[in-house]
Amino acid sequence: MEKAELVLVCGDKYMQVKNLDEDYHCQFGAVSKSQLKKAKSGGTVKSNSGVQMHAFRPGFIDLYKKIKRAPQIIPLKDIGVILTEAGIGNQSVVVDAGTGSGALALFLANVAKKVVSYEIREDFAAIAAENVKFLDIKNLKIKNRDVFKGIDEKNADAVILDLAEPWKATEAAGAALKAGGWLVSYSPTTPQVSDFIVSLKNNGFLHVKTVESIQREWEFNERVVRPKSQPIGHSGFITFARKVK
Amino acid sequence: MEKAELVLVCGDKYMQVKNLDEDYHCQFGAVSKSQLKKAKSGGTVKSNSGVQMHAFRPGFIDLYKKIKRAPQIIPLKDIGVILTEAGIGNQSVVVDAGTGSGALALFLANVAKKVVSYEIREDFAAIAAENVKFLDIKNLKIKNRDVFKGIDEKNADAVILDLAEPWKATEAAGAALKAGGWLVSYSPTTPQVSDFIVSLKNNGFLHVKTVESIQREWEFNERVVRPKSQPIGHSGFITFARKVK
Amino acid sequence: MEKAELVLVCGDKYMQVKNLDEDYHCQFGAVSKSQLKKAKSGGTVKSNSGVQMHAFRPGFIDLYKKIKRAPQIIPLKDIGVILTEAGIGNQSVVVDAGTGSGALALFLANVAKKVVSYEIREDFAAIAAENVKFLDIKNLKIKNRDVFKGIDEKNADAVILDLAEPWKATEAAGAALKAGGWLVSYSPTTPQVSDFIVSLKNNGFLHVKTVESIQREWEFNERVVRPKSQPIGHSGFITFARKVK
Amino acid sequence: MEKAELVLVCGDKYMQVKNLDEDYHCQFGAVSKSQLKKAKSGGTVKSNSGVQMHAFRPGFIDLYKKIKRAPQIIPLKDIGVILTEAGIGNQSVVVDAGTGSGALALFLANVAKKVVSYEIREDFAAIAAENVKFLDIKNLKIKNRDVFKGIDEKNADAVILDLAEPWKATEAAGAALKAGGWLVSYSPTTPQVSDFIVSLKNNGFLHVKTVESIQREWEFNERVVRPKSQPIGHSGFITFARKVK
Repeated sequence: MEKAELVLVCGDKYMQVKNLDEDYHCQFGAVSKSQLKKAKSGGTVKSNSGVQMHAFRPGFIDLYKKIKRAPQIIPLKDIGVILTEAGIGNQSVVVDAGTGSGALALFLANVAKKVVSYEIREDFAAIAAENVKFLDIKNLKIKNRDVFKGIDEKNADAVILDLAEPWKATEAAGAALKAGGWLVSYSPTTPQVSDFIVSLKNNGFLHVKTVESIQREWEFNERVVRPKSQPIGHSGFITFARKVK
Repeated sequence: MEKAELVLVCGDKYMQVKNLDEDYHCQFGAVSKSQLKKAKSGGTVKSNSGVQMHAFRPGFIDLYKKIKRAPQIIPLKDIGVILTEAGIGNQSVVVDAGTGSGALALFLANVAKKVVSYEIREDFAAIAAENVKFLDIKNLKIKNRDVFKGIDEKNADAVILDLAEPWKATEAAGAALKAGGWLVSYSPTTPQVSDFIVSLKNNGFLHVKTVESIQREWEFNERVVRPKSQPIGHSGFITFARKVK
Repeated sequence: MEKAELVLVCGDKYMQVKNLDEDYHCQFGAVSKSQLKKAKSGGTVKSNSGVQMHAFRPGFIDLYKKIKRAPQIIPLKDIGVILTEAGIGNQSVVVDAGTGSGALALFLANVAKKVVSYEIREDFAAIAAENVKFLDIKNLKIKNRDVFKGIDEKNADAVILDLAEPWKATEAAGAALKAGGWLVSYSPTTPQVSDFIVSLKNNGFLHVKTVESIQREWEFNERVVRPKSQPIGHSGFITFARKVK
Repeated sequence: MEKAELVLVCGDKYMQVKNLDEDYHCQFGAVSKSQLKKAKSGGTVKSNSGVQMHAFRPGFIDLYKKIKRAPQIIPLKDIGVILTEAGIGNQSVVVDAGTGSGALALFLANVAKKVVSYEIREDFAAIAAENVKFLDIKNLKIKNRDVFKGIDEKNADAVILDLAEPWKATEAAGAALKAGGWLVSYSPTTPQVSDFIVSLKNNGFLHVKTVESIQREWEFNERVVRPKSQPIGHSGFITFARKVK
């Protein structure tokens, strides 16, 4: 998997170009490799059919949208809730489990100081490792290990669980967190949340809070001002608790 | 304004202690200054009425919740949408305007590499400066200046507007952004969004997207599993667009 | 409890006048009983301070909003979902339980041909009876009886349960419904819905569907176009199922 | 278009049978016309492959779901809001415009005493007339007329507009309503609502209220308790106002 070197934009069309050593073919015609190589971020290229396109270097979010995906991926709206409720920033040390394709871990690593991610399945850990390489992320370590058996790290600012049975990781998470640190769990169903919260109470976590985030996209086109008719799917409930002892 | 040195937690009660040089009085009795000074993060203190409390050092989000506030403040749920849609991370350089009490700028600075924030009102800039000092944030610069007259910074990854008339800042934002950079605007009403989007189109911005985020808190208490009856207020619409030329 | 004879409206103020035999005093001054008696629906009256008010005869919804209330009342938005999903109309025969203050039963009776409502608590049944009299509803019968012990009616088009343990009424409801009839249950929490749905499956009900309705009020005032900041509380989940045998 | 005489249900499958004079073929095999004719509501039939199906007579809502549809149709959730906010019941006289396929008018007629529906387009009025016949509704009259030119009816309890330019009907609606009657308008976009509200104020309507209804369907299947991932599309904003003079 190669990373894009250039983004080309023509009206609402958006294309990522991986290889600047060969001509790029798209619906607007071909762009010669010599043009691609000379393209500056903020400059333009022209196709052989005369269509002008804007060029820029891809940023984190451009590349993030092209990572390999395991079946389910936590949506951006829920990552945003986690980052802000737990106050994760550029000095934070964060542990997450299970990695899956690494989407959440990669996003966290783009924000935090250091991220360690636990994944029991070898195939998922391999996909995640590929994505780490693809995005050229240096501060994220994937561990192909069972998080239920313990977390090596200590004094973490936050531990984030995206697991089918998060309650089995509560004790390990408690041991890994600093006092005042945040334990966060993401689950699609309410019985998962109920069981997780029982485990939080049994392990002395406090200030438990569960939220759900609904995002609507709007259309603004002259007099057509209205919520878009597109789906607002459910993703998951996000539970926060604080280690205090 | 002094920053808290210690958080004390007793059940669902949460208290920030600013001064370790004097006894702390709360509903659970008095905690002696000697206990406060010896308290370790993750340790406990005992009040003179025998109530044990957990202690920990406040993190960014603890202190953030205590900043001085100008009337309106962007809620965490919307900050989360901005961070994730624009992919703001620890290498990002961000400009925001208007600062208000600095809430958004402070949060951005906790995540990003560098933040510059424009505020035309001297009183607000002063409150924001106080908050910067309170949170001991080093990578945020408040400028008491009219953003409509131009932005000094160039090549910003994102420019974020929280202004009554954001369309007046579109041109200045365009000049400050790098190619591929994100212009974001936060507005409570739909006509503001409509007018802003006209300015985006006039200034060549592309990939315009407006979203609204609704957050619900849930109660999970044995068989009482239900959305809380508390309010879900409207805050604002968030518009994203991309500079391409 | 007396029913209002007249509604007076002055700008956004709205007042129900119960007694036309005495002067009516409000924030706009006093309206003489002679004016009240002469007031036509669609006419005006004038207070002794010279303020003009519009008058009209109260309709069902005006009076409905003044009924005596038991602690919890099903909101209009959820009554609307019940009426439409189950297709309740002017030829429908409906049974509901428990009555509470009778709010749902009264609304149903205003739409349907005939409504019978079961309430085990004598105090609630008394409040409901008072409300029936207040609204002068003729086609609603309150029965101060335990619905778990059986429903006298047969061949009902719909049975609607607003009970803490609706699953205990599933069998009785099944016996009261005609083939193709609707069993509807309104519950605030998810475990109640889960248990009710188990009872539906055990009793051969089909086409089970659970919905939740969220209503937002908007402000439209020139350029101030936005959802109102007021609360959107949770009320309940509404489950529908169909008797087929 | 013929009306179904019988509904057959087999597990989650639901079938409407129009013609009892011929064998009915479905995925479960063929059901002989003799069985269809003998089927009682609440009884069963057996296909030639031995599959048993439950039979019942279709109710209003079964048939309603089979009416001919013009492109856009107001969803049940919004009809529910209209019925309840305006308190429409079995004694109400209601005018609506424009009819479209007649979906709203048919539903109103199933509830109210009398409904008159205005539709300027001949083709739509013809579809609606067909639907009235199909549902065998007696208290609904379709008028193929321009509602902007006036409404014949007087003293209506409610006038309901589903028009692209509802503000052009405000005056006519005011003349048709009784004092205290409700003017309701359904519009997909916010500028339509804004313009309509200006017309309400110019025509002396009071107590203006605009709401939007969001409905979510839930999945309850043992431990899988969660909102369904299916779409929650936007339909429209519903504005209510009251005639007072």
